[in-house]
Amino acid sequence: MDSCVPIPANSDFTLSNMPYGIFSTESEPNRRVGVAIGEHILDLSKVGCFCGPILSKCCHVFKEESLHDFMELGPAAWSEARQTIHKLLSSSEGMLRDNTNLSKKALIPQAEARLHLPAKIGDLTDFSASKKHAENDRIMFTDDNLQINQNWNYMPVAYHSRASSIIPSGTAIRRPNGQRLSSTGIVTFGPTEQLDFEVELGALIGRGNDLGRPIPVDDAEKHVFGMVLLNDWSARDMQSWEWKPLGCFLSKSYATTISPWVVTMEALQPFRCDMLDVQKPTPLPYLQHRIPSTFDISLHVHLSTEGAESVTRLSTTNYKYMYWTLAQQVAHHTSNGCNLKTGDLLGSGTISGPTKSSAGSMAELSERGSVPVILANGQPRGFLLDGDEIVITGRCAKEGKSIGFGSCTGRILPPLSFPGYY
Amino acid sequence: MDSCVPIPANSDFTLSNMPYGIFSTESEPNRRVGVAIGEHILDLSKVGCFCGPILSKCCHVFKEESLHDFMELGPAAWSEARQTIHKLLSSSEGMLRDNTNLSKKALIPQAEARLHLPAKIGDLTDFSASKKHAENDRIMFTDDNLQINQNWNYMPVAYHSRASSIIPSGTAIRRPNGQRLSSTGIVTFGPTEQLDFEVELGALIGRGNDLGRPIPVDDAEKHVFGMVLLNDWSARDMQSWEWKPLGCFLSKSYATTISPWVVTMEALQPFRCDMLDVQKPTPLPYLQHRIPSTFDISLHVHLSTEGAESVTRLSTTNYKYMYWTLAQQVAHHTSNGCNLKTGDLLGSGTISGPTKSSAGSMAELSERGSVPVILANGQPRGFLLDGDEIVITGRCAKEGKSIGFGSCTGRILPPLSFPGYY
Repeated sequence: MDSCVPIPANSDFTLSNMPYGIFSTESEPNRRVGVAIGEHILDLSKVGCFCGPILSKCCHVFKEESLHDFMELGPAAWSEARQTIHKLLSSSEGMLRDNTNLSKKALIPQAEARLHLPAKIGDLTDFSASKKHAENDRIMFTDDNLQINQNWNYMPVAYHSRASSIIPSGTAIRRPNGQRLSSTGIVTFGPTEQLDFEVELGALIGRGNDLGRPIPVDDAEKHVFGMVLLNDWSARDMQSWEWKPLGCFLSKSYATTISPWVVTMEALQPFRCDMLDVQKPTPLPYLQHRIPSTFDISLHVHLSTEGAESVTRLSTTNYKYMYWTLAQQVAHHTSNGCNLKTGDLLGSGTISGPTKSSAGSMAELSERGSVPVILANGQPRGFLLDGDEIVITGRCAKEGKSIGFGSCTGRILPPLSFPGYY
Repeated sequence: MDSCVPIPANSDFTLSNMPYGIFSTESEPNRRVGVAIGEHILDLSKVGCFCGPILSKCCHVFKEESLHDFMELGPAAWSEARQTIHKLLSSSEGMLRDNTNLSKKALIPQAEARLHLPAKIGDLTDFSASKKHAENDRIMFTDDNLQINQNWNYMPVAYHSRASSIIPSGTAIRRPNGQRLSSTGIVTFGPTEQLDFEVELGALIGRGNDLGRPIPVDDAEKHVFGMVLLNDWSARDMQSWEWKPLGCFLSKSYATTISPWVVTMEALQPFRCDMLDVQKPTPLPYLQHRIPSTFDISLHVHLSTEGAESVTRLSTTNYKYMYWTLAQQVAHHTSNGCNLKTGDLLGSGTISGPTKSSAGSMAELSERGSVPVILANGQPRGFLLDGDEIVITGRCAKEGKSIGFGSCTGRILPPLSFPGYY
């Protein structure tokens, strides 16, 4: 079906997609809810009341400065909104197509808009769900043995991460300072020399669960509103020094970038696919799906040097390579009674595929700096340099239908220097 | 100086204390800001406008349902409020003493009030700052070697914890389910058999810092609004199985209990004391205080069996035993540019003193269950049983002056059973 809004060929924001985001414009600086379509944003705060049974009673949700109130309404409301918006944007319906006044008011060129975080993110959890990445991590960061830790095969291992420093795509990243152990055994404090990215998807919780009430694995996806691209910036030298025994702390807490457009679970349904791995040992009952499946989402990572003088594709990977599913992650997370809240974000874990060119971090691509990646302009990269920009993109395509995530970008700024600080 | 409100001998809530909290009553169910004094609460929403230069312009802050807006105003406002409230509550001033109408309206018996979380807590961080506890942990949970990890001596080690499941004192704790590795090598899912407490203090961030802008160690305490008691509930069997290599996740994320009254940093000043340990190696410059000091806060942990039939003192410890200071924790946390926000909570880490009777968890007191503690009623306890209640209290006393934290309590409920779940 066609849209009444022009959609360029290969646009991420087709009529099959309709991702939600929070935006503002110079002429109207209040944040509000929009839907990306082609090169425009449909400003939902201008559309007037939705007439479905749920949303007609909750007109305010699209005028809020986060998706929180809308997401809290749950899957029936999300579905109702999607139907209404689809109708509005269809070329076969006249509501928007024939109403010049409305389309002038409600269709805003993306180039004129500023995009913000889509939600008030309470807690951030980061999983480790790619077996390849876990194996690579093990090889890079431990000296004990090269076996993956035994628990990894029984549960979607995860850690709590830092929510306060989640930033929207396009925000520059200040190279962090931290403690490192030198090869000669000296502990120093200063700018990280091993700044890295990690390509992930983030699942935004729409409707949570009460404390003490686990979410069964087959209900789990209903609690997820949608997905975003996520870059889990990591300082590897700081990480190796700090992470035993309590895990990552300052090596990751200065920035986590997410893409601003939330692709809904409903939009992802056509791209559902079979699992690549047979999970062995068989998961414990609380982690067993009736019908295991995942999503076919291809991901690209590009590095653009200062001034975009040279752009290099670093990695091509796919969400379907993950060993643990999103539903298993949600079920495991809540299996002890832990409550997920509207707006919580679950990072998938670094998405590393089976080959070297599908690895999801510089540490893996460059074997922790020892085999630098050669950029398109001939420069070597072990880890990221100041001025480098990492651009993550994601797309699903099947039977002529396609949707995309937009992009998740961040450029590295030089470290701040504080007199007498190090 | 005396208060115009009667204060029983040994009350935690003296005129030197005046901690802030959020409460509601049956007749007035909206949450609002109060100050504990003796056995009463001074309802600040009823006091009318404060007349100081800052607060006279922000009358609303004490009518809010969290301390957020008040805390965000910063130290000058906190100081101004404290002076005004001190005056109001003094027996030498007539404002409250002589105004029967006001005192009837604004003084509420604590027995009639319900206490809530004092703040919207964004991120929860938990440190490991007691050397004794770190050593005990090392002995209990690792097989590699009995040495404390080298990084512990260079930095206040910490991990991100779960904010959504922070609950106020008095909320019952549901025994969590989780994965455990049996001694025979079998992985099962079911109710934890090693439920434990950890006694800590929690520091509530009043005014945060911008992303990318570290807080220098000597400015750090100015960013802390006050302290609460904290119980970091832990399931040791789940912890041992899950925590390598990414740290604690589900073994702690079902509940963290805090006491409802926030004792301000201003109230704690008279109880400042010297550090017990000389930090060796000398901390790196960003962790060096001009004048190192900490606070003398004695802490007691009691276990009360079902129906309070028997009460046993489990531990007597003190915050001054901590190796790393609160200021060093704040400085380290932000040294990479990580932003702290108003309402963030920093757990001190388990406060274990030098002797066995000053250990801050059952795992330490009972040598991980192998040497059960004998309760006052003769029952042995390796870990906590259903029906057990843990009560943490804290007090400071010096030169005839004393203040207390009230209590931080939680009783264990039996696990929920889910058909087909395990």
